[in-house]
Amino acid sequence: REMAAAWARAVRGVLLDVSGVLYDSGGEGGGVPIPGSVEAVRRIKASGLKLRFCTNETQATREKFVKKLQGVGFDISVAEVTAPAPAACRILKERSLRPHLLVHDDLVPEFAEIDKTNPNCVVIGDAAENFTYANLNEAFRVLIGMEKPVLISLGRGRYYKETDGLKLDVGAYMKALEYACDVQAEVVGKPAKMFFESALAEMGVPAQQALMIGDDIVNDVGGAQRCGMRALQVRTGKYRPCDENHPHVKPDAYVNNLAEAVDIILQHL
Amino acid sequence: REMAAAWARAVRGVLLDVSGVLYDSGGEGGGVPIPGSVEAVRRIKASGLKLRFCTNETQATREKFVKKLQGVGFDISVAEVTAPAPAACRILKERSLRPHLLVHDDLVPEFAEIDKTNPNCVVIGDAAENFTYANLNEAFRVLIGMEKPVLISLGRGRYYKETDGLKLDVGAYMKALEYACDVQAEVVGKPAKMFFESALAEMGVPAQQALMIGDDIVNDVGGAQRCGMRALQVRTGKYRPCDENHPHVKPDAYVNNLAEAVDIILQHL
Repeated sequence: REMAAAWARAVRGVLLDVSGVLYDSGGEGGGVPIPGSVEAVRRIKASGLKLRFCTNETQATREKFVKKLQGVGFDISVAEVTAPAPAACRILKERSLRPHLLVHDDLVPEFAEIDKTNPNCVVIGDAAENFTYANLNEAFRVLIGMEKPVLISLGRGRYYKETDGLKLDVGAYMKALEYACDVQAEVVGKPAKMFFESALAEMGVPAQQALMIGDDIVNDVGGAQRCGMRALQVRTGKYRPCDENHPHVKPDAYVNNLAEAVDIILQHL
Repeated sequence: REMAAAWARAVRGVLLDVSGVLYDSGGEGGGVPIPGSVEAVRRIKASGLKLRFCTNETQATREKFVKKLQGVGFDISVAEVTAPAPAACRILKERSLRPHLLVHDDLVPEFAEIDKTNPNCVVIGDAAENFTYANLNEAFRVLIGMEKPVLISLGRGRYYKETDGLKLDVGAYMKALEYACDVQAEVVGKPAKMFFESALAEMGVPAQQALMIGDDIVNDVGGAQRCGMRALQVRTGKYRPCDENHPHVKPDAYVNNLAEAVDIILQHL
């Protein structure tokens, strides 16, 4: 274990993916904590390490999302969360884009200040039940009607795990629209470099001293490593054994869960 | 016109795409004929040319599909139609595959003789309103649960035109599942080579003497040309002016509609 934990030595800041690392989403109460994770977050905070929650979840505003996590025991606040919707809003304002939104109803308030009349782009998030045939067609028609279609995607995840099983994520629907309209989406959530760089800036920690912990081999681990961070994959959430043979991405280490990762990090502080 | 119609000289058999060439689907009666097309089919038949209807439509059984076309005046019978579902059934039987079907309710009878218990593949067609989030998730879970996912797609069309506008076609949803499961679909409709070859065999006409007429630059025109046929694009159905600048596919000619194509063919007989 000593050799294997070289990655834990220089850590000054930790970025945590949320779904699949802190909790499994879905079901009655909106999700259940992964054993040891509530305590693990407290221990990171008590240690003096910088901490940032780095999520692609776009089924709710940050306020609602944080309230749900607080409700199951997590020490977390809105100011500690980096999420795709605010990143998208910055881009929309900078480029005077007026979005047609294909997102979850509960995410819409994040776009309250954005002009949505006469759309000149489509923003797609994890719309879940809103991914009806009619809604996907509507977004498609907005895009195909544009001379140069602009599609902004709040992530490129393939699927995620809820308490009742795996669910298709925004990336699958992004691909459907990309193919139908012969366009390439601009991704603003993980694994976009800008997204991780924002999170690092917000923490005030350089990439070399930051550690990403996630369950998604490509979007968490691969994305963070491309920014110069170290990254762990937890064996919780959407983790599958075949991830350990991924052709392109190799985490700095695997851990069984967040609690184990924190054990090792704190041993090396 | 004489020079431009060199393609019309050696024609002995005609393959007609249906939606967008014979009629625009959708609306109250299920579709409206494109002006001149009912008569054009009659003229082809009267001329002694071989004729085959070559469709990727998978929203109904061939019986129901043909009845709809007869209802609006077309001279067409089930035996004259090449369609993806029977082609898929042949493959399923050959390879002992038991499909989970993600197709339109009205297509299900085409698979009546196929064992669908304990599925070991997914067959996706143009399911239209059946492309709900729940149904796409269900197909996804069947695939992701397999060691080597097998996805058979009854086409790879991006979109088609109905009387009330453009609609997403099976190809977009195929791409969503391909991406989510990291798998490549096997396409059995147009532009699959085997599909065109079946149609040619059924007509008894070699590729060099066959002419495909379609509104889809990639699936009709490109697919037929790759089999050694000549192919025209009609400026009806899903045709869009930018198709004429397609980077890879160049039809042997453009015609305004099927009636015009038949005029030219018959002049050269």
